[in-house]
Amino acid sequence: MNTIKVAILGLGTVGTGVYKLIQKRADVMERTAGAKLEVKKILVRNMQKKREGVEQELLTDNWKEILEDDEISVVIEVMGGLEPAKTMILEALEAGKNVVSANKDLIAEEGHVLLDTAQKNQVDFLFEAAVAGGIPIIRPLKQCLAANDISEIVGIVNGTTNYILTKMTEEGMDFADALKKAQELGFAEADPTADVEGLDAGRKVAIMASIAFHSRVVFFNVHTEGITKITARDIAYAKEFDSVIKLLGVAHNTENGIEVGVYPMMIRKEHPLASVRDSFNAVFVHGDAVDDAMFYGRGAGEFPTASAVMGDVIDVVRNIGYGCTGRISCTCYKDLPIKEFGQVKNKFFIRMQVANEPGVLAAIAEVFGDHKVSITRVVQEHSAPEAAELVIVTERVKECNMQEALKALMEIPSIQEISSIIREY
Amino acid sequence: MNTIKVAILGLGTVGTGVYKLIQKRADVMERTAGAKLEVKKILVRNMQKKREGVEQELLTDNWKEILEDDEISVVIEVMGGLEPAKTMILEALEAGKNVVSANKDLIAEEGHVLLDTAQKNQVDFLFEAAVAGGIPIIRPLKQCLAANDISEIVGIVNGTTNYILTKMTEEGMDFADALKKAQELGFAEADPTADVEGLDAGRKVAIMASIAFHSRVVFFNVHTEGITKITARDIAYAKEFDSVIKLLGVAHNTENGIEVGVYPMMIRKEHPLASVRDSFNAVFVHGDAVDDAMFYGRGAGEFPTASAVMGDVIDVVRNIGYGCTGRISCTCYKDLPIKEFGQVKNKFFIRMQVANEPGVLAAIAEVFGDHKVSITRVVQEHSAPEAAELVIVTERVKECNMQEALKALMEIPSIQEISSIIREY
Repeated sequence: MNTIKVAILGLGTVGTGVYKLIQKRADVMERTAGAKLEVKKILVRNMQKKREGVEQELLTDNWKEILEDDEISVVIEVMGGLEPAKTMILEALEAGKNVVSANKDLIAEEGHVLLDTAQKNQVDFLFEAAVAGGIPIIRPLKQCLAANDISEIVGIVNGTTNYILTKMTEEGMDFADALKKAQELGFAEADPTADVEGLDAGRKVAIMASIAFHSRVVFFNVHTEGITKITARDIAYAKEFDSVIKLLGVAHNTENGIEVGVYPMMIRKEHPLASVRDSFNAVFVHGDAVDDAMFYGRGAGEFPTASAVMGDVIDVVRNIGYGCTGRISCTCYKDLPIKEFGQVKNKFFIRMQVANEPGVLAAIAEVFGDHKVSITRVVQEHSAPEAAELVIVTERVKECNMQEALKALMEIPSIQEISSIIREY
Repeated sequence: MNTIKVAILGLGTVGTGVYKLIQKRADVMERTAGAKLEVKKILVRNMQKKREGVEQELLTDNWKEILEDDEISVVIEVMGGLEPAKTMILEALEAGKNVVSANKDLIAEEGHVLLDTAQKNQVDFLFEAAVAGGIPIIRPLKQCLAANDISEIVGIVNGTTNYILTKMTEEGMDFADALKKAQELGFAEADPTADVEGLDAGRKVAIMASIAFHSRVVFFNVHTEGITKITARDIAYAKEFDSVIKLLGVAHNTENGIEVGVYPMMIRKEHPLASVRDSFNAVFVHGDAVDDAMFYGRGAGEFPTASAVMGDVIDVVRNIGYGCTGRISCTCYKDLPIKEFGQVKNKFFIRMQVANEPGVLAAIAEVFGDHKVSITRVVQEHSAPEAAELVIVTERVKECNMQEALKALMEIPSIQEISSIIREY
């Protein structure tokens, strides 16, 4: 029975989870993967920091010690960030080591370089943990659904914002309170920008779109909007429309290019994504053969993420045993254009405050008509004798037309405020 | 570029789907799997039957023609049933051919023989399509979640019964009407026994439990009950209890054995399985690292099932290319006991018709107390002056104690009828 020696880069939350899980599953690893697993080195920045339950002699702050150790055949990169992770991964791959990574920031920007380098060296570069934490999604897309032409991938891939929106929906909290609560519970960071502005979700949707559509999509291609402007009033309207508001990462493979964005959307209650609550994540996929499919689970956390990392590691161990590392590499063999966001079509929910005077609705309808925006629904509520709240729901219209229409609306003096613009799924 | 030649055994719904999907994806197969795929032979029973869109010269009714053709390296078994499928699969594996199968009946009874034979011959035996149609579940369990100790697997794995229960819940239909509608739409067969009695679901849960718990579970081990006794009245009570009724395949890995059964259960509305509607399937998994995860999609149908079959075929093609067929074989390395069903604990919902006279509730409570059944909830409704409907919800109690208690209840003269016994998830 072989022993496979691994190195872990980074001993934060995920790194610690991976280390513990390797210890915990040492006994079964031989039976399921065909080899023992031994952590030989752990790369840390601070050698002085006390780390409960980790053997001190495994720690090193010298990358070369790992890189030049020929006994180490698997490198688990869980430190995150672009550098030095990128350089280390590339060096490891060039040295013939297999790499398992959870680094969404890096993969969403430079995934192709890493995958190409792995392929050149016939080693594995696997990254199930980079998208949606513990949820199996990369392997299902690359293998189980490989015979499908996937046209759509839509995901709730940020637990922080889903927790906040769930609290707003179920407990009537406003955004600030829900964010505060998420921070208290450790679901949101002190600086929540990457989560609440949709950047984290944007990286994940870029990775998923690349794999689903077999064509390179990077974070830069993703139009991102966050949830900071969502109000309790919008949530109430969603309920009235038998919908909920979710921050969705949306990618479509259309005839004239890939559409990819992250933004809050109203989604019908019957849709399986609508019932994904709290900090859970889910990814919904439509393929021409499989039809609709959805993958649900924990999108983050020490052990859920370690579960995904270790699933990859076990696969690498099997591949080493069978001499077939590198058997699945980059699947982006197409070069599809990315559609300019202005050309993407969406339905819109627009809530505005208007003066309660004759002709306002006619003026608004005219502006929409001029910009090719068809209206499907109008709800008007009188909040005060002289003011009214007007909600307009549109047909699917081009983003650029909607932007132009909104600019024109701002010119109408009786429109006091455009309070919300939310897309509908 | 290699060409991999395959044979398809059976040209029913799934076989036709597989054939069509291979033709449809011929162009991309080289890019994603590294080799072309060519259907060389299709085994059919009736050579005379006209088959639209299939080249007549591919058909054969002679198994030996396929078995003895050394060019054929992958056999796709989609004919179903125990024999001759078993013999053919074993012969194919012994001849060094890889086999992909969608045959749940066979795998739920003889899976270990097939897997052992594959392992001995270092070829692949893959069967993603045997459970939950197009939904990726076997590969996620065997690979993505391989580092988990999985304690629970619960699934809606029969589309027919889920469709029927959805119609009963959402449209107030009774069982007979909903079944008739399912038959009209082709969701249920003329003889619906295997579906409505939970046998089909039982086979799938046996396969999933084997893989999830690394220990052999066969169909014979599964306690099965169907949905034929569920009434509109039960559905209404479920609603009142903020629940829905679903036919669940339930498997638990407990300290004193594996529990495995299929029966209708009331499940809380917030649970992700509760919102799985119509003929969709879903499998919910709890692992110690990943926490909760769920896999949702189409559990049957020509193309969803073909999607799963082809995902496996593409994997085999990759393995052939890398010379690593047989890299994942049987993962049942434990030999866990199966718990006798009487020892399994469940919560129960019991609905009965009783005479409206003093002392009835006391007598019932005494019987339950005598059999160690704790009651958590009692609802009484007067349907007529002299009769009442009594609903009792229990704590978790042993199945054998509940059976004894029910026998004793039948002895009480004022109990006119025990109308329903439904477990609670």
